[in-house]
Amino acid sequence: MSVIYDRVALIGLGLIAGSMSLALREAGLASEVTGYARSAETRDTAREIGLCDRICDTAAEAVAGADLVVLCVPVGAMGDVMAEIGPHLAPGATVTDVGSVKQSVIDAVQPHMPQGAHFIPGHPLAGTEHSGPRAGFATLFRNRWWLLTPLPDTDADALDRLNRCLAGIGAKTDVMEPAHHDLVLAVTSHAPHLIAYTMVGVADHLQRVSGEEVIQYSAAGFRDFTRIAASDPTMWRDVFLHNKEATLDILGRFTEELFVLQRAIRMGDGQQLFDYFSRTRAIRRGIIDAGQDTAAPDFGRGVTKT
Amino acid sequence: MSVIYDRVALIGLGLIAGSMSLALREAGLASEVTGYARSAETRDTAREIGLCDRICDTAAEAVAGADLVVLCVPVGAMGDVMAEIGPHLAPGATVTDVGSVKQSVIDAVQPHMPQGAHFIPGHPLAGTEHSGPRAGFATLFRNRWWLLTPLPDTDADALDRLNRCLAGIGAKTDVMEPAHHDLVLAVTSHAPHLIAYTMVGVADHLQRVSGEEVIQYSAAGFRDFTRIAASDPTMWRDVFLHNKEATLDILGRFTEELFVLQRAIRMGDGQQLFDYFSRTRAIRRGIIDAGQDTAAPDFGRGVTKT
Repeated sequence: MSVIYDRVALIGLGLIAGSMSLALREAGLASEVTGYARSAETRDTAREIGLCDRICDTAAEAVAGADLVVLCVPVGAMGDVMAEIGPHLAPGATVTDVGSVKQSVIDAVQPHMPQGAHFIPGHPLAGTEHSGPRAGFATLFRNRWWLLTPLPDTDADALDRLNRCLAGIGAKTDVMEPAHHDLVLAVTSHAPHLIAYTMVGVADHLQRVSGEEVIQYSAAGFRDFTRIAASDPTMWRDVFLHNKEATLDILGRFTEELFVLQRAIRMGDGQQLFDYFSRTRAIRRGIIDAGQDTAAPDFGRGVTKT
Repeated sequence: MSVIYDRVALIGLGLIAGSMSLALREAGLASEVTGYARSAETRDTAREIGLCDRICDTAAEAVAGADLVVLCVPVGAMGDVMAEIGPHLAPGATVTDVGSVKQSVIDAVQPHMPQGAHFIPGHPLAGTEHSGPRAGFATLFRNRWWLLTPLPDTDADALDRLNRCLAGIGAKTDVMEPAHHDLVLAVTSHAPHLIAYTMVGVADHLQRVSGEEVIQYSAAGFRDFTRIAASDPTMWRDVFLHNKEATLDILGRFTEELFVLQRAIRMGDGQQLFDYFSRTRAIRRGIIDAGQDTAAPDFGRGVTKT
C-alpha cells in the first residue's frame, strides 16, 4: 500500500494507539508515526518495545508537522489534550479521536480546533479487556467497524483520506449522527459493561459464597462477565460520565425487563421464560450472520472442538 | 485406559450426553455406550452420526444391564425420566445426572430409586451455547470441574468408580453440599444467564435503535451477552424454575448494586465508579490464576494476536 499520511501522531499510548501504530507501520500507510503519553513510564515502555517510530516527551512535539493526529485518551481527557495541542497543529491537519462517546467529545474538542484543521470524530468498535502500551496488536481492527460521526462542515477530502487510511488497517467504516451513535453504543456496549461490572461486584460482596469458590467454579456466563469487567477503569468511568443520559435510559429499561423476568421466575411462569429465551436466540443468529462473531462454541475456552 | 463400566446408558442426547459418549469411547472407559432421547428426530440424528454404540427406542431398553446411567435431560424432566427407568435398572447400578441445579433434582429423582441402586447427583461445569446431538465434542470436559453432591448414604465404592470415570474423560471432580452448590451456581451461572437474556431482550425491544444496527455494531460486551443468551431455552427455563430462591436472592442483590452504580452515574461520582471497576479487575485476575480461563485477549474474536 502507498503512504496516505506523512506523519501520524498518536496521543495516548494504550491498546488502541498501540494497535494503530503497529497496523499503520505494517501496512506502510504513514512515513512516520509519532507517539506521546502523559505518563513517563508509558513513554519508556513504548520506546523499549519500539511501539512508534518516535516517542516524544510533549504532545506539542508529537503533533508538530503531523497531517493526522489521533486522540487516544479517555473520553474525559479529550478536551484538555486538544487545548494543549491546538496551537501546535500543522495547517490543514486532520484530527480524529477514538472515544466510545461522540457528542461529549465533539463538545469538548471542537472549541479548541484551530482554523483550517479538520476534526472528524471516530470510534473503532474493537478492543480487548487488556490495556496499556503492551496490549496492542496489528490485527486488532481487521474486519471490525470504525464508526465516524463527521460534523456538518467536515471537509470531504479529509474524510475520504481518513476513510482510506482506516480501510488500510483492515477496518470497515460507516458514518452516523453523534447522538445516534451514543444511543446505539449505550445498548451494545455501555450498559452491558456496567451490568457486567455490577454482577462481578455482587459476587465479590457475597459472604455466604467464599470468593475462592466463585473463582474456582466460575462457570460460563460469569467468566464472560469477569472478562468484560476487567476493562480499563479510567476509560469506562469516563464513558459512563459522558454518555450519562443514554446509559441511564437503557439501564432503566433493563431494570424493568429484569423485574418482569424475576416475576416470571417467582410465579413459576415457565412459558414466559421459554418464549423470552427463544427470542434472544434469534438475535445471536443475526450477529453471527452479520459476521461480527463466529459460530464456534466459546464457553469452553481453550477447548478445541475436534 | 481400562474399562470402568461395562455399559453406560445416556438418557437425553444433547450437548452433554453427546460429548460424554464421544469422550468415553475415545478413552475406552465403557464396553458399550447406549443412548436414548425422547424425540425420534434426535434418535435418528444420533444414529446417523454414530453418536453412541447403540441408540435405543425406549429408555428402558437403554438402561437394561447398564452399570452407569446418566440423566442428561433438562432439570424439570429428571423426575419423570427416573420414574420411567427405575423399574428397569440393573441391580447395583449407579445413576448420576448432569443438571445445573442439585437440590430439586435430588427431591425429584430419589423417590424413584430402586433398592440397591446408587444415586450420585452431579454437575459438569462445561458447555457451549450450542445444543442438540450434533453439538457434542470429546474434549468438552477437559480440565473442567465436575461437581458431585453425594447424599449422606452414598456408597463409597460407587462414588470412587464414578470419580475415576469422570477423571478419565478429563474432568476435575469436587464434592459439595447440594444447597451450597445451588447458591454458588446462582452466582456464577444462573443469575448471569438471566441478566444476559434480559439485556439481549432489551436490545430487541428498542424502537429507536433498529435491530439491524444493534446487530451490525454489536460491540464487545453485548456480543458476549448474545452468546450466553443463545443457550438452550428449555434447559434454562428449568434451571430458573428449580433454583428459584437462590436465583431471586442473587438477582435482588444485583439490582440493589446496579442502583448504586446508576446513582453514581447520575450524580457524576467518578471516584466511586473508578474504585468499583478497579475492584472487579482483581476478580478477573483470580479466575485466570485459577486456570478457569486464559489471559488471551478475547473481545476481538477471530482476531489472532500476532
